[in-house]
Amino acid sequence: MSTNYRVIGTRPIRHDGADKVTGRALYGADINLAGMLHGYVLRSPHAHAIIKRIDTAKARALDGVKAVVTAADFPVTPDRIVDLGEGETPLSCIRGNVLASGKVLYRGHAVAAVAAINTHIAEEAVKLIEVEYEVLPAVLTAPEAMAEGASILHDTLKTKELGEQTGRVSNVAEHFRHTMGDVAKGFADATVIVERTFDTATVHQGYIEPHNATALWNNDGRVHVWCSTQGSFVVRDTIACVLDLPVSQVKVTPMEIGGGFGGKIPVYLEPVAALLSKMSGRPVKIVMSRKDVFEGSGPTPGSHTRVKMGVNAEGKITAAEATLAFEAGAYPGAMVGPAAMTVFAAYDVANVTIDGYDVVVNKPSTAAYRAPGAPNAAFATEQVVDEIAEKLGMDPIDLRLKNAAKEGTRRADGPKFRKIGCVEVLQAMKASEHYRSELGGPNRGRGVAVGFWFNVGLPSSVTISVNADGTVNLVEGSTDIGGTRTSIAMQAAEVLGITAEQVRPTVVDTDSVGFTGVTGGSRTTFATGMAAYEAAQDVVRQMKERAAKIWETTADAVALDAGVFSHEGKQFTFAELAEKLGSTGGPVVGRGAVNPRGAGGSFAGVVVDVEVDPETGKTTILRFTSVQDAGKAIHPSYVEGQMQGGSVQGIGWALNEEYYMNTEGTMTNSSLLDYRMPTALDLPMIETIIVEVPNPSHPFGVRGVGEANIVPPTPAIANALYRALGGGVRLTRLPMNPPAVMRAVWSKAN
Amino acid sequence: MSTNYRVIGTRPIRHDGADKVTGRALYGADINLAGMLHGYVLRSPHAHAIIKRIDTAKARALDGVKAVVTAADFPVTPDRIVDLGEGETPLSCIRGNVLASGKVLYRGHAVAAVAAINTHIAEEAVKLIEVEYEVLPAVLTAPEAMAEGASILHDTLKTKELGEQTGRVSNVAEHFRHTMGDVAKGFADATVIVERTFDTATVHQGYIEPHNATALWNNDGRVHVWCSTQGSFVVRDTIACVLDLPVSQVKVTPMEIGGGFGGKIPVYLEPVAALLSKMSGRPVKIVMSRKDVFEGSGPTPGSHTRVKMGVNAEGKITAAEATLAFEAGAYPGAMVGPAAMTVFAAYDVANVTIDGYDVVVNKPSTAAYRAPGAPNAAFATEQVVDEIAEKLGMDPIDLRLKNAAKEGTRRADGPKFRKIGCVEVLQAMKASEHYRSELGGPNRGRGVAVGFWFNVGLPSSVTISVNADGTVNLVEGSTDIGGTRTSIAMQAAEVLGITAEQVRPTVVDTDSVGFTGVTGGSRTTFATGMAAYEAAQDVVRQMKERAAKIWETTADAVALDAGVFSHEGKQFTFAELAEKLGSTGGPVVGRGAVNPRGAGGSFAGVVVDVEVDPETGKTTILRFTSVQDAGKAIHPSYVEGQMQGGSVQGIGWALNEEYYMNTEGTMTNSSLLDYRMPTALDLPMIETIIVEVPNPSHPFGVRGVGEANIVPPTPAIANALYRALGGGVRLTRLPMNPPAVMRAVWSKAN
Repeated sequence: MSTNYRVIGTRPIRHDGADKVTGRALYGADINLAGMLHGYVLRSPHAHAIIKRIDTAKARALDGVKAVVTAADFPVTPDRIVDLGEGETPLSCIRGNVLASGKVLYRGHAVAAVAAINTHIAEEAVKLIEVEYEVLPAVLTAPEAMAEGASILHDTLKTKELGEQTGRVSNVAEHFRHTMGDVAKGFADATVIVERTFDTATVHQGYIEPHNATALWNNDGRVHVWCSTQGSFVVRDTIACVLDLPVSQVKVTPMEIGGGFGGKIPVYLEPVAALLSKMSGRPVKIVMSRKDVFEGSGPTPGSHTRVKMGVNAEGKITAAEATLAFEAGAYPGAMVGPAAMTVFAAYDVANVTIDGYDVVVNKPSTAAYRAPGAPNAAFATEQVVDEIAEKLGMDPIDLRLKNAAKEGTRRADGPKFRKIGCVEVLQAMKASEHYRSELGGPNRGRGVAVGFWFNVGLPSSVTISVNADGTVNLVEGSTDIGGTRTSIAMQAAEVLGITAEQVRPTVVDTDSVGFTGVTGGSRTTFATGMAAYEAAQDVVRQMKERAAKIWETTADAVALDAGVFSHEGKQFTFAELAEKLGSTGGPVVGRGAVNPRGAGGSFAGVVVDVEVDPETGKTTILRFTSVQDAGKAIHPSYVEGQMQGGSVQGIGWALNEEYYMNTEGTMTNSSLLDYRMPTALDLPMIETIIVEVPNPSHPFGVRGVGEANIVPPTPAIANALYRALGGGVRLTRLPMNPPAVMRAVWSKAN
Repeated sequence: MSTNYRVIGTRPIRHDGADKVTGRALYGADINLAGMLHGYVLRSPHAHAIIKRIDTAKARALDGVKAVVTAADFPVTPDRIVDLGEGETPLSCIRGNVLASGKVLYRGHAVAAVAAINTHIAEEAVKLIEVEYEVLPAVLTAPEAMAEGASILHDTLKTKELGEQTGRVSNVAEHFRHTMGDVAKGFADATVIVERTFDTATVHQGYIEPHNATALWNNDGRVHVWCSTQGSFVVRDTIACVLDLPVSQVKVTPMEIGGGFGGKIPVYLEPVAALLSKMSGRPVKIVMSRKDVFEGSGPTPGSHTRVKMGVNAEGKITAAEATLAFEAGAYPGAMVGPAAMTVFAAYDVANVTIDGYDVVVNKPSTAAYRAPGAPNAAFATEQVVDEIAEKLGMDPIDLRLKNAAKEGTRRADGPKFRKIGCVEVLQAMKASEHYRSELGGPNRGRGVAVGFWFNVGLPSSVTISVNADGTVNLVEGSTDIGGTRTSIAMQAAEVLGITAEQVRPTVVDTDSVGFTGVTGGSRTTFATGMAAYEAAQDVVRQMKERAAKIWETTADAVALDAGVFSHEGKQFTFAELAEKLGSTGGPVVGRGAVNPRGAGGSFAGVVVDVEVDPETGKTTILRFTSVQDAGKAIHPSYVEGQMQGGSVQGIGWALNEEYYMNTEGTMTNSSLLDYRMPTALDLPMIETIIVEVPNPSHPFGVRGVGEANIVPPTPAIANALYRALGGGVRLTRLPMNPPAVMRAVWSKAN
């Protein structure tokens, strides 16, 4: 494939644009089925308690109530380990998070649910459910949970220690270690060593649309679910698992999605709605409130990390060491794994040890959030690197360039990098007008940082049908969160030699397309795009056969160039040949189904200028540049959108966002007003620089761009704040909100 | 493929059964969109009139009215000839039938339509539309319309005479002739010649669900239509044509369909709803009343036919001649074409002339109705053959067997038969217990007849995705009227070696599947089944590749037998291999897209016993046996269902049904109460005998079975009545209702 693209790299209007801006797009809350009931979930008022008794009799007796469900209504099956595409988990944990059984493990934990003829009756009925709790002490952070004598969440949770199952019951689900080289020798070779600890708060993805699910348990035993999800097949497989059904008995229709960022991968309401539908014989819809979303869905983990790095006199990093203790929330399976994969990924270091701790605490079970784990880790590493640069008197980008990971660099967790763009991102940061500009003014500081996300592959399926008017219909299974209908359509268009607008993409239900993994891991434009590429190639093969039939030659004698099929001077445009399909053998349908490897990680960098108000501690972002390696930017506007989105979320995480918990484990800011994400008024225009180091594993060189951009903002802002405060005091705890900044100001004053 | 089938020929429960019997299945009238308006159509009170003026101002001014549409709102484009899969037609005729322009041509002709916030206001508003008509004389039958000085429907309609365009304006759109051999010599060689004329009344398909359409003209210029149709792609292409849009700008979602029988192929309400939506900016739903259905949709033509046949002393038919004058209704394009193709198709006759006349009359534009045209023709031919048998003193089945069409027989319209089952059907009739039984009792008679339908191919597309639990999802574009989800799924199951229940078929919208022709022409189990066969083969090829990968061999070394993949003693069941797809390369999706020829016509025969009440003229069907060549019966229950359904419709057509018109051209029995189709209480159990003469053009030998079964009932009943009345008087006019029978009784008495 030449890189002289006709469609790729252009900026067509998104296919779903009109529906989105005119309000026609249908979200889960828009579902309204005949005879539909409304569900309401009873949530735990305690962060940690034994459920001694649940009595639903009064709720059942209320007029208008049609069904009440608790964990006792799950089918009785032995516990087993399942893998729903996100790693191995006990089924009991998945079920336990859907409806608490025996204990509640966090404030907001679902305990029971009611279906009634309207949501008001359902809400009233929930209040009539009597639950007797025995309240236990709550542990809210990893260090607390790991402390001697800490309240234990799971009596049966035995710590896995360096790959071995121990007999020890604790809140540490797992302690693992990645190591390579000789760390002691590395530190011995170092002339400068910096070691610091860092803490980050629990934050939420903050998608605008709350979770929702509508389920119809049909008379033939099939369950149909409409919901807001990043992965319809994951929902299908999770429901099947939780409710002990074959996957083909579940059909999931993914509605439009109002944001996800990883938080719409887990399943919360869907099995509850399904059970309520089974009991009532009617469709049941449940929609979370914002409070439910904060308290009952999965935020990203808070973390406690220690990073130690050493450099020699030439500025070469000789050793790196990290201890990562990540909150899993109520059930094991935290984001410490990816944190360990990314913590030193930007650097070519020979001697590394990384210890990871997956720690359960009395908070909601954590979910993915844009490069999950990586921002927590980068917050540590990138500040330590910054401090080293200062100590060496080196430009912080130069230090990074000197140590940057490149093709052939091995990570402590195993993989060796293929072609990557870390150096190119750093060079682009350094060459940027922003980095070369004067900062000016007092109380100002500039910070830089880089970050990495490895991206994933996973299966995707696409079919393409040719219309007689020279357009094609493209069917895919990937929920479109960030414009992937278009970025996938563009890849098909490029192969077919038609325009993006001539491809009509549709995201269909799980009965109507081949298996497709989640929209997550920055995989969709990469993997589903590759499926579209394959399906388009399948179309081209067949179209050439038709042309060959008409021209009485063989398919391989027919050329396709820029949408024109030709052979010995004869030619058909794509549209001309499309018109002739009926008479040359029938419709043309192409299919592509892939499970690609080589997603090709993406590096991102940030240059940020801040100004601190020393009277109030308020931090103003003066200028912010996001740089990222897209491999190949299929639709540059959407790449920029991802970079801007990740940057803004990083800024919020850096400066303000957190689950503000009281000692009983109740989040006291569970509304968007109090949680206070940054708005357009709080921010400058986020500048973007797209770097393109093609991914050798993708036909167009695509790397996913959804995630790496959220990794560097928090440390870059921390590094900028360090300078804005005149040096000497580092903010090692997120959020770096006005009180934290004022504490830093005062600590300097003392 | 061996004929030792595991799935084909069994009777699994239909996939849509639960939804249908529990009321969950969603029909067009169930659609309810946010902000939806309700449409109402103003219909002509006259059968023939000039529209001098339409004033919609008062309707527009009514509170709650959001849009009013007339033919003036169609886009202005030059007239052109279009082919929407049913032959060439001027665009002006398609548009004219959707909304009358200049003239109304039948009572019930749509003139204007209103969209309002509810249907009551819409109905009120329609009454406020002022239309000034100049009423013209109406012509209601072909002979009337062909008469000298008849009122002319279309000033611009010039008769096409034997392939040549004449300058003559008349109600005869076309006169064509099929001829072969030397008819004069054939009659000269005959020892017995019978010539008679026959008339049949206009009858309706009588589907339970009225026409309906909901349209949303979206802000991006795309039109989405939900409707009850036999062919979603035909609706798409017709709307595109009528509204001058590219086909890819129209998306049609076929809802469940409550019967069609050919009558749900044309488009009536869809473009009207679309225009009203465009004007109002809101979705618009229109549902016909039963009266609208009778007066405003397409019935099957009334006809006037003359058949003359001669036989020699040995009982060999030496010549056959037919004149077929068929009512087209208001616009050209009647069913005289297929009538001419089928009129003598059951017989091997060397000398044949067939004259066909396509005649416009002031009745609704006719539509297909189960083997359209063939029953009208067979009503003539099969009575003439019966009369000849009587004259020769031959058993009527023996006479037919002596002259039966077989492989190699050429029809006067051109084609030579491949393998057909005419002889086998006649033999099965003769061998039937029914035919060998005693009739007994007075006023009873037994009749036989045969009929033919040629069936069609047309494009179909199917994709199949494999689920990890060993089931597959099948996506198709064929509206399922008679159980084709299952008959198509069964063909895929047979190839894959799984059960019918392990295939989950889904009928999707036009954006989500490759082009697929109408469910009509008895093609669906044949053609879409073939697409499913191809898609399943594509799956098998890929599954073998996966097994080969695991077993480190080549795909062609892997065998598949009865759902088990094997190689040198190693084996995987389909489900075992399905589980391993993720790890061996990703999902497996198969595709099949076909435009098959060789649909392989189907012959059907009837043996019927009747008893006449000489006091009232009431005819009782004592016993009725339907015999049909299915090629291969994929699902025998649905084949039997088709045979029983066609038989019952034939009985209704024979004995009672008709558009009872007054002289002004108003149908006076336009309700199901007055139209009076036969009910279960009127009928004995319809006995069925499936004959299987495999179609060599289909991998499983399938012939369509939807239509031929309606062809022989009317003449078989006429022949039975002839004998029940003691011979001597033939009923040559349909319906043969009590008044007609009494007239026959009286004519004998005089």
